[in-house]
Amino acid sequence: MQRIHGGDIYSFDKDVLDFSINTNPLGIRQEIRAAAISAIGDMDKYPDMRQEKLKAAIGKMEGVDPDHIICGNGASEMIFALVTALKPEKTLLLSPSFTEYEIAVDSVRTEKVFYLLKEENSFDLKEDILERINGDIDMFFICNPNNPTGRMIEKELLKRILEKCCENDVCLVIDESFTGFSPRYDECSMVEEAERYDNLIILKSFTKMYSLPGLRLGYGIIKDPEIVEKLEKSRAPWSVSNIAESAGIAACALKKHPDNTRAFIKREKNKICLQMSYLEEKGIRFIESEADFILFTAPDVKGKNLYDLLLERNMLIRRCGDFRGLDGRWYRISVQDEASNQKLMKALKEIYGD
Amino acid sequence: MQRIHGGDIYSFDKDVLDFSINTNPLGIRQEIRAAAISAIGDMDKYPDMRQEKLKAAIGKMEGVDPDHIICGNGASEMIFALVTALKPEKTLLLSPSFTEYEIAVDSVRTEKVFYLLKEENSFDLKEDILERINGDIDMFFICNPNNPTGRMIEKELLKRILEKCCENDVCLVIDESFTGFSPRYDECSMVEEAERYDNLIILKSFTKMYSLPGLRLGYGIIKDPEIVEKLEKSRAPWSVSNIAESAGIAACALKKHPDNTRAFIKREKNKICLQMSYLEEKGIRFIESEADFILFTAPDVKGKNLYDLLLERNMLIRRCGDFRGLDGRWYRISVQDEASNQKLMKALKEIYGD
Repeated sequence: MQRIHGGDIYSFDKDVLDFSINTNPLGIRQEIRAAAISAIGDMDKYPDMRQEKLKAAIGKMEGVDPDHIICGNGASEMIFALVTALKPEKTLLLSPSFTEYEIAVDSVRTEKVFYLLKEENSFDLKEDILERINGDIDMFFICNPNNPTGRMIEKELLKRILEKCCENDVCLVIDESFTGFSPRYDECSMVEEAERYDNLIILKSFTKMYSLPGLRLGYGIIKDPEIVEKLEKSRAPWSVSNIAESAGIAACALKKHPDNTRAFIKREKNKICLQMSYLEEKGIRFIESEADFILFTAPDVKGKNLYDLLLERNMLIRRCGDFRGLDGRWYRISVQDEASNQKLMKALKEIYGD
Repeated sequence: MQRIHGGDIYSFDKDVLDFSINTNPLGIRQEIRAAAISAIGDMDKYPDMRQEKLKAAIGKMEGVDPDHIICGNGASEMIFALVTALKPEKTLLLSPSFTEYEIAVDSVRTEKVFYLLKEENSFDLKEDILERINGDIDMFFICNPNNPTGRMIEKELLKRILEKCCENDVCLVIDESFTGFSPRYDECSMVEEAERYDNLIILKSFTKMYSLPGLRLGYGIIKDPEIVEKLEKSRAPWSVSNIAESAGIAACALKKHPDNTRAFIKREKNKICLQMSYLEEKGIRFIESEADFILFTAPDVKGKNLYDLLLERNMLIRRCGDFRGLDGRWYRISVQDEASNQKLMKALKEIYGD
């Protein structure tokens, strides 16, 4: 697997408008910034190995027992920590989906099997996934809504998947990094179930909703004390910096921020999708998304692909050819601030219009 | 293994003078603080997955090829990453030594063998270690100077160990987190050799010398591109936060700080050791140390141990009974600022004097 990710602005010798990063376009909240700065003076103290204050804050925000929370150096660390700790012999993965699940599974050199999300189904997960969950499978990674498709799995199906996982002793990991961007976050989240089922692990991140990819803070909701113990023993005791701890606690206290974010994303995403639908006859086709990003295909123009055409205009989008199950026709853009979104729409019109 | 570490000030409901943490008593330099604060505004950007600027800065400071440097979320993350990536079947460890090597090896459920450092040798590593390095061993962890003993292994012996490791295809990991505190840092470091030998890995940390345990930043010097690749594939791509990157680059530019630190540590450590030698007849015996901490035994007084007696005086020292190869008679203190050291010496005099 190639390791390509959005937000990699370091390869360019010019400033670019970054539509490849899929974090909250409302940016870093002042309260979080202030909390991070206030923690700089604590860099000379070791972080609390037990992360008590941070777990209490997250527990309160999520409505879960703080003992069921494990924090890490980003949700991505949690993915690797889980795979390293649980050593699944056979893992079920969706395709296309976030690449790091597969890289993590490869690192323990175990078998992986793929369920192909089909373009003709708008990359939706279908009921036949249930047939793929059996006693041979040890672990199953789901991203909901999925990255890069933005498609949400309905709660009804999720529950049946969980049931099948319980029957077959499969550890179901649902990455809810993007769930909070959807108006249906409450309806589709499985956090409540994670408080009741030993087989279910939820991964969440401060990276996306609070626009903190440079801070490194994510967490898992894990009821099974055996998994918690294995996880803690298979990694260093200080995964979360003092600064991330302090910023995370401040983020948990922001009651209205997720609501404001959802309203903003909905409005701006609608505008972008409307513009894209105008360009359907030019060959642009987008997948309806419940996340803060949109997957779409766009044709080359005079032998040049859209990625290069936009980069010429100092706009960076995510090429998706490296995702297993997608090819070079696919791109992902994320919703940015209003002015940036307008520039992108203008550029698309220029490139494809007339 | 119990997971007990110095600097765990979170278990106390009062402020304590912390002699259990073994970081630089000169504290955080203003240049590092400023660099960390300036990076707070970049929390909304992903860190550079390739860590180019940080590697260049460390490479310049260490005089090594930046391509041979891998950075992580503290040297402790590097320990786990190495063990996870290389999956040694049999690992040689020193006893007593830093506990996390053993916990990391345990996490991959492989065999470990111990070389016992003997009290009658002042816990020095002796030549007979060479007999223990054979084709059965895959990995060998050394901490130099050793934690918690403070003893430095002579370069001459280190070179023979490396030679034996090369002959037997053993990956030799030398943790030099404390080497910089010794006046003989240049003479005893194996960094130069790590640039030439595929079998040698050096671990270093910003935690100790720059007093940044709350920041989380460490690195490895690794020549073998195969090991580098395995390491990168077995962990998340963003181990180092933007803030740690920025602070680390600032630390690398501090030319005089390590020299000033060594001079300070030498002077203050001498004072403490002198005081301890006055108390030898009361049963205190310390091990000569080349690090910024001192391992010593001290008898109980009227049924109370020294840890509790000092905690009553709001001073926290490291009990060492959890180190494999030590027992409850042993304690570790680290050099702190002048005023704190004086308080500790005064307390020792009060407790053991007359």
